[in-house]
Amino acid sequence: MDFSSKLLENAVYEMSQLPGIGKRTALRLVLHMLKQPERQTEELSNALVKLRSTIQFCKKCHNISDTELCEICSNPKRDASLVCVVEDIRDVMAIENTSQYRGLYHVLGGKISPMEGMGPQELTISSLVNKVKEGEIKELILALSSTMEGDTTNFYIFKQLEGLEVLTSTIARGIAVGDELEYADEVTLGRSILNRIPFEGTFNNN
Amino acid sequence: MDFSSKLLENAVYEMSQLPGIGKRTALRLVLHMLKQPERQTEELSNALVKLRSTIQFCKKCHNISDTELCEICSNPKRDASLVCVVEDIRDVMAIENTSQYRGLYHVLGGKISPMEGMGPQELTISSLVNKVKEGEIKELILALSSTMEGDTTNFYIFKQLEGLEVLTSTIARGIAVGDELEYADEVTLGRSILNRIPFEGTFNNN
Repeated sequence: MDFSSKLLENAVYEMSQLPGIGKRTALRLVLHMLKQPERQTEELSNALVKLRSTIQFCKKCHNISDTELCEICSNPKRDASLVCVVEDIRDVMAIENTSQYRGLYHVLGGKISPMEGMGPQELTISSLVNKVKEGEIKELILALSSTMEGDTTNFYIFKQLEGLEVLTSTIARGIAVGDELEYADEVTLGRSILNRIPFEGTFNNN
Repeated sequence: MDFSSKLLENAVYEMSQLPGIGKRTALRLVLHMLKQPERQTEELSNALVKLRSTIQFCKKCHNISDTELCEICSNPKRDASLVCVVEDIRDVMAIENTSQYRGLYHVLGGKISPMEGMGPQELTISSLVNKVKEGEIKELILALSSTMEGDTTNFYIFKQLEGLEVLTSTIARGIAVGDELEYADEVTLGRSILNRIPFEGTFNNN
């Protein structure tokens, strides 16, 4: 692309560094900003810089937080003996949205993926193992994505916890609520039959 | 969405003010920034604020420019008697990419669209009429989108120029190069037959 303005070219270039934003989209976004009041661009910039420079992670669960201990970890009403292990903050938000979970979280910061250069050292696994060794945690729920990387990470964590007194579970894999059986893939359907549960168990959480 | 951090919430909110960026996409983008070096966020913010605060428009063609007169208008090799009227800078870039056009441009800054509150006063039409009155321009090529708003704007400009000595043309509408006839819509196909050109004319610009 051939820009008539260096400033414009630079702004479009920086914008297109974001994932999923190509040069054309970046140009569209930047031109939109030019039509908006200057204040709006300043507010966006300030919010981004402020977040990036003062970002903190909860020292207990490693979730993004404005305080040393996040709201969930510092809430005395939450069950500290139950910890749900998730990949990132989006998973915390998704689980919080269900209003079904009253335990704490542990945010790994990703999953083991040699292809993307993510090893166990890049994640907060050792901090998790230390927390379990302290003995307060009774159950650990592994709630990672159902992918090869997720399964690898689950298995690695499980191995690290060997010999420690903690119950380890994973979230149920099965047919999504509202889904038709005929369109489910065979692996999911197969697992959902193998891991069937007593019928009365389905009322527990409603 | 329920965020664990006010700073994060604010950044996501500001990001989601951009067109086509919802809350989820905004969160994905912001989380990506958090994983990148701090420098990158600063560079994006600086580029945006700098562009927004020092943005200039060429005083002749109203295109975005870093100088008072843009590169195209100040280029003595361009034909100043030929002016192509376009909607915004993206159209200038698209036409420049063809390397077929050696005249100047006039950027309207939009098109007449009462639904979006865009009247003739919001556009640079009066500046265009003044330029024509100065008498340097021999031909005006109207190159607006082929929509109702584009046609309205074309007609409005044409009416404003009544009585002035300038040749007004519009870009050819027809079957795109590489397109199959059977898939063309009937309006385009009909127009392309009505506005057929002598066969030898098709070699002119190759």
